[in-house]
Amino acid sequence: MNRRAARRQRRTESPLLKIPFRTLRNPWPPLEAASPEQIERLHLASLHILENVGIDFLDPEALDLWAKAGAKVDRAAQHVWLDRGLVMELVSKAPPSFTWRARNSERDVIIGGNSIAFGPPGGMAYAIDLENGRRPGTMEDHEKFLKLSQMCNVLHFASWGQVETQEVPVSVRHLRRLRAGFALTDKAMMEAAHGREITADNLAMAEIVFGDSSTSSGQGRDCGPVIGDVINVNSPLRYDARMLGGLITYARAGQVCFITPFILAGAMSPITVAAALAQQNAEALAGVALTQVVRPGAPVIYGGFTTNVDMKSGSPAFGTPEGAWALIVGAQLARRYKLPYRGSGSLTTAKTPDAQAAWETQWTLWPCVLAHTNLIMHAVGWMEGGLTVSFEKFIIDAETLAMFYHFLEGFKIDEETLALDMIAEVGPGGHHFGTSHTQARYSTEFYESFLTDRQGYESWLAAGGHDAAQRANALWKDLLAHYEPPPLDPAIKEALDDYVARRERELEGKNLYE
Amino acid sequence: MNRRAARRQRRTESPLLKIPFRTLRNPWPPLEAASPEQIERLHLASLHILENVGIDFLDPEALDLWAKAGAKVDRAAQHVWLDRGLVMELVSKAPPSFTWRARNSERDVIIGGNSIAFGPPGGMAYAIDLENGRRPGTMEDHEKFLKLSQMCNVLHFASWGQVETQEVPVSVRHLRRLRAGFALTDKAMMEAAHGREITADNLAMAEIVFGDSSTSSGQGRDCGPVIGDVINVNSPLRYDARMLGGLITYARAGQVCFITPFILAGAMSPITVAAALAQQNAEALAGVALTQVVRPGAPVIYGGFTTNVDMKSGSPAFGTPEGAWALIVGAQLARRYKLPYRGSGSLTTAKTPDAQAAWETQWTLWPCVLAHTNLIMHAVGWMEGGLTVSFEKFIIDAETLAMFYHFLEGFKIDEETLALDMIAEVGPGGHHFGTSHTQARYSTEFYESFLTDRQGYESWLAAGGHDAAQRANALWKDLLAHYEPPPLDPAIKEALDDYVARRERELEGKNLYE
Repeated sequence: MNRRAARRQRRTESPLLKIPFRTLRNPWPPLEAASPEQIERLHLASLHILENVGIDFLDPEALDLWAKAGAKVDRAAQHVWLDRGLVMELVSKAPPSFTWRARNSERDVIIGGNSIAFGPPGGMAYAIDLENGRRPGTMEDHEKFLKLSQMCNVLHFASWGQVETQEVPVSVRHLRRLRAGFALTDKAMMEAAHGREITADNLAMAEIVFGDSSTSSGQGRDCGPVIGDVINVNSPLRYDARMLGGLITYARAGQVCFITPFILAGAMSPITVAAALAQQNAEALAGVALTQVVRPGAPVIYGGFTTNVDMKSGSPAFGTPEGAWALIVGAQLARRYKLPYRGSGSLTTAKTPDAQAAWETQWTLWPCVLAHTNLIMHAVGWMEGGLTVSFEKFIIDAETLAMFYHFLEGFKIDEETLALDMIAEVGPGGHHFGTSHTQARYSTEFYESFLTDRQGYESWLAAGGHDAAQRANALWKDLLAHYEPPPLDPAIKEALDDYVARRERELEGKNLYE
Repeated sequence: MNRRAARRQRRTESPLLKIPFRTLRNPWPPLEAASPEQIERLHLASLHILENVGIDFLDPEALDLWAKAGAKVDRAAQHVWLDRGLVMELVSKAPPSFTWRARNSERDVIIGGNSIAFGPPGGMAYAIDLENGRRPGTMEDHEKFLKLSQMCNVLHFASWGQVETQEVPVSVRHLRRLRAGFALTDKAMMEAAHGREITADNLAMAEIVFGDSSTSSGQGRDCGPVIGDVINVNSPLRYDARMLGGLITYARAGQVCFITPFILAGAMSPITVAAALAQQNAEALAGVALTQVVRPGAPVIYGGFTTNVDMKSGSPAFGTPEGAWALIVGAQLARRYKLPYRGSGSLTTAKTPDAQAAWETQWTLWPCVLAHTNLIMHAVGWMEGGLTVSFEKFIIDAETLAMFYHFLEGFKIDEETLALDMIAEVGPGGHHFGTSHTQARYSTEFYESFLTDRQGYESWLAAGGHDAAQRANALWKDLLAHYEPPPLDPAIKEALDDYVARRERELEGKNLYE
């Protein structure tokens, strides 16, 4: 860090910036909402669906792979039935945990076991902040969110589309996004698993950054996962060509697929949560199994994104009791198969970072964290059912993540912390503010909030009477003013620039999403 | 219900009013944050404190009771040392659960086991709402909150001082409050355990309401607990005369004492949470034991209200990771002694019902509910560190309580809810909106929110762009407009009026708090 940067950091001193990057673990037994017998019943229902109803796979190579693996395939209908023995054999080949590498190895992410990795939103159409309101996302917004993701160590990885760069031509968005991602952060990186051509570009750019240890060839030179993305299921029971192209390309290269059915109970599945989970489980198992057909041992995550529709409006509902059940029981199912589990995040339908935004977010994050979710995307800033990312909510939610870091550490119970001598010394009716025991721990003992206001009413009012969103507004602007990019070898930067320039010429006017 | 009332109720139709009064239970194993060995270590540390440091009891009768029970008493110092054998023997006499009776027996409250009882705030100095801002509480405000507590079936009991009636002379406040409480609600009732004279009035008024089954005599005619209150400890290690007068009077009459140390770690105890909990446990056990000296088998609740101070401002901090640990481990300690457990609530230091108010509340309610807290006071509306009660936050928090009711019911997994036939019938790529299975459950399957806004951004904006607090404002006013008092025998009402009138004359100018 140069002297100017050091000076800046001293000046800012937000407790948010003092939190070191580290692996987060939940040391307690997972919260469970279904009995082992109920989990078995869901499991058997899923196998029944896979054997008797089957799943659409709208991609010729995927159908070939299934046929070779021994599944019953109807090529004309692009439909596959999966025998329970085949599915379970394939699923058992997936690793229970793995390390997702960052370009800065100190920021590698452990996925699995009782670890928890938080990440920013992905795929958001609009950005919103208190001054400028809601508008279509731009590269400028995306870069700001990448910088915030880099600075907030409560986040373990960065993501494409923290907001969509809507002014950039669709065919070259992935190139510019990923270049910005590698330049502005050194954390593990998501980039879109959209078909074969985009993923091939992503792998080529990852190869430039990760050098000899790159993974794009799939020839055995690779040394592990460096890039990943969500593979969504078009629920009910359908994988489309775009997602299958991404799944096959990433899995073949040993990269990370987050297999995630997106089910709104009552719309994409029967209305009952039991049915939604049985269907989610069937869909997820099919996708996980396919990654293992492509490459046994490929890193893969069992994802869930099941919630309910609002039956009044037909809109998705987030942060609901139904969503909490699905999160918790989804984790139980993933554990049954010894698979890492993905859930989300700071979900809400609120349009503004108000009390609703906060309570719906807590109703997602609490079950997520307590259920042993391993990878939590959209952990900050998500709003309006996933259409919008809010700068202020990014900071508001980061406070909750920081609290979970502290909370999950638990507290020590030993002679020193029991401090029976101090209790005796101070005695009845005394006070502990000034004791040596308190003074020695004054500034380190408690979680240090960066957003909470604990002033008295009159002082708070005199200071402007700002609510949490207004305070968050000041904080994200202050953070951005102090951003310093992580070091990147100029040769790598130049190679990325060259690659992007060449591919932009090649892809001009091409539709990668047809 | 008369015709006019029926018409009104039809018109309102808030889902909040459709929730029936019922016992709430947490069917899952409790969340635990300490190992059995750690709990034992805290237990032993508490016994060490009771034996070697001791506790102040600033009341002559309490000292007499302790001396008769066999404790070591220093009358001059008003100090008592409690032998571990004596404490544990007394604590074992307290009932593990009991029923707290309401004047409407359909609203009796079960305290203990895995049941959860929610109640409104108590002891708040100010009221706040969006139109009128923050002001000292009045009887008018208190009555409004009593009405809301009566209407919201997510609350199991009502309370004195939902906001202090600051315009009423202190010496007669308890009389007017309790008369209003018995008139405006038929739920189980708290009234101040402040010394001997106030509690005697409370018992006399309860006798009027509960008739032959009253409890004021302590002569064996009583048929259980009908009134209760918090007995706060003046931490560290001191019970004052006011609280001891209340404890002795209520316990002798078989009424409910919520023994609750209020500890801010770093101020009223050493700064470490382990020490705070060891001290809390010592204080709580001493109070529980005293109730059993007074009357073996008296209903009593082990309470915890331990959190940390904000070391920057010296103010209490609520909704913190430290507070969550204390809540969870406090519940583990109460279970070790087979005692019902009290925790709180919708705690926050926010001055306005914003995101902070919501996240701090969730950081208290989630650990409370998951840890098997049996009685949760201050479950709605608490703000500003307990100084203020907010009409809007009352409704915002009621939404969370209603969500917990739904969440803790879990969901059924059986042939009907798995709906494998519907999954087969709709098949890949179809939709489930219109199926008979969905349509039959359309309006009943999901938790029905009364405050969440799930409209699209443009519709929300067109409808005024209201945040959660603004919507809550409309809702509490609508509820109050439709309030109907529960039936009360006119003879009882008259007897209460007579009692209050007589006692107001007797107490005029008297200081009950000297």
